[in-house]
Amino acid sequence: MMLDKITEKVLRMIDGEGFKQEGAFNLRENGISICHGDSEHVKIRKKEDRQGIDIYIDKDTNGETVHIPVVVSSSGMTDVVYNDFYIEDGAKVTIIAGCGIHNSGCNDARHDGIHTFHIGKNASVHYEEKHYGEGEGTGARILNPVTDIYVGENSIFTMDTVQIEGVDSTKRETDITMEAGSRLTVTEKLMTHDKQEAVSNMKVIMNGDASSAQIISRSVAKGESIQTFHPRAVGKAACHAHIQCDSIIMNDAQVRSIPEIDARNVDAQIIHEAAIGRINSEQLLKLQTFGLNEEEAEGVIIENFLN
Amino acid sequence: MMLDKITEKVLRMIDGEGFKQEGAFNLRENGISICHGDSEHVKIRKKEDRQGIDIYIDKDTNGETVHIPVVVSSSGMTDVVYNDFYIEDGAKVTIIAGCGIHNSGCNDARHDGIHTFHIGKNASVHYEEKHYGEGEGTGARILNPVTDIYVGENSIFTMDTVQIEGVDSTKRETDITMEAGSRLTVTEKLMTHDKQEAVSNMKVIMNGDASSAQIISRSVAKGESIQTFHPRAVGKAACHAHIQCDSIIMNDAQVRSIPEIDARNVDAQIIHEAAIGRINSEQLLKLQTFGLNEEEAEGVIIENFLN
Repeated sequence: MMLDKITEKVLRMIDGEGFKQEGAFNLRENGISICHGDSEHVKIRKKEDRQGIDIYIDKDTNGETVHIPVVVSSSGMTDVVYNDFYIEDGAKVTIIAGCGIHNSGCNDARHDGIHTFHIGKNASVHYEEKHYGEGEGTGARILNPVTDIYVGENSIFTMDTVQIEGVDSTKRETDITMEAGSRLTVTEKLMTHDKQEAVSNMKVIMNGDASSAQIISRSVAKGESIQTFHPRAVGKAACHAHIQCDSIIMNDAQVRSIPEIDARNVDAQIIHEAAIGRINSEQLLKLQTFGLNEEEAEGVIIENFLN
Repeated sequence: MMLDKITEKVLRMIDGEGFKQEGAFNLRENGISICHGDSEHVKIRKKEDRQGIDIYIDKDTNGETVHIPVVVSSSGMTDVVYNDFYIEDGAKVTIIAGCGIHNSGCNDARHDGIHTFHIGKNASVHYEEKHYGEGEGTGARILNPVTDIYVGENSIFTMDTVQIEGVDSTKRETDITMEAGSRLTVTEKLMTHDKQEAVSNMKVIMNGDASSAQIISRSVAKGESIQTFHPRAVGKAACHAHIQCDSIIMNDAQVRSIPEIDARNVDAQIIHEAAIGRINSEQLLKLQTFGLNEEEAEGVIIENFLN
């Protein structure tokens, strides 16, 4: 089907691979699933009891990508959606699930995506989530994702979340439970500006022996924005976890980082590192000697830091 | 005056320099100040409104040591004491303030020392606090210190706290406010065993430009003991802070570390590192090849780790 120009523009921002109406996909616009497709191994079904879809990824899925973007362009809308992913043993899949808000009105536009992953054994799941806001309206652009992930034995879960700009308020809740031999890699990138607020709470429970988690969070806070991070790693078995949070603070922004490492087993090994500081002034000067002005130099440093 | 044998033994454990009835000192035993002395520059006065002493350290104090140990050897006693330190501009002083409990009865013995430091400008204060418990009784040995420290402009505060053994339950509350140019160094060493519990909450507020804080916490949790750390560094000015928490976990112990770094100024630079893990097995093997048994090898590694 034909998409409108705003939707197409927002999709380019939130779906790095480029959204196409091919293979397994579901596009949600202003609270309605406007188009969807299945593939041989991935079936998407509308929920009957509430808003949202069930995504069934069978055991023979081998490397395909499922696109399930959400666009909200209607000012004043609150869209709450429940998406459940059922991933069979051995499946290999990439899921791209961004959300973009275009708000040109004076009322708030909000999307709460509650995503639950049920991952079997020996599976490999790559999950990408880009959040973006735009629009000249005075209404806020609000995104409150909830992500619950159960990672079965020997499965790999890789999660990349990016919030680059335009989101006035976000509260992220991520809960992950890991079984024996499972591996988790989370990369979180967040930039806030003006009077934006961002909260990210994450809890990783390592229940199984030989499970391992790596969580990297990088953020830039500009303007008068406020960021709060609260990652928690609980080791209940022989496991490894490494959490690293680095933030650049600019202007009158505030960044608060409250990581928690909790070892409840003699063979749990958990490391945490966090740093908050301003842009490296030597780097800034060096780039300026190459002819960049201060703003351009800051832009280059921030881009490098987030990538 | 003559001290009893138990008091003398406990004093040897909590006062590394050796307690003597010389210079400025105050010995508190079972809720009573049993002996005290002043020096030319340090005057100790009993409070009139509640338990405790006021310690006045004048501006010409230059390197002397004040000993104010506390011993509780009466089972069933709860001793709450308020000690206030008034340290004038430019004073240089070392304060040794340990507490030891000898409990040979079946009732709990408890000491809550509430210490408040009012430190002027350009002063240098070294504060040592050793906590220790012993006694064959079944009653618990409980120590709940509260330490409030105001560090004036360009002053240096160095705090060493040690809890080596025998303390069944401890809850530490430490609050530090730092003015411009002040420097803070905190070293916390903690070992718990059996069913002991230890909680350490610390809050450092850096209010003044060019203030800097370094907090190092090292702990060993054995047996079924449980430790919880919650250090907080709040940067409200151009300041530096570095928090490092390292824990060794053994047997069925649990360690939880919840540091918080909070930057509210673009020139606040705050770093945190935490690690929880078991004893390095390579080190253990190496020491065993030198003829030490496993327990001896563990002892050497723990001692090195804490020192």
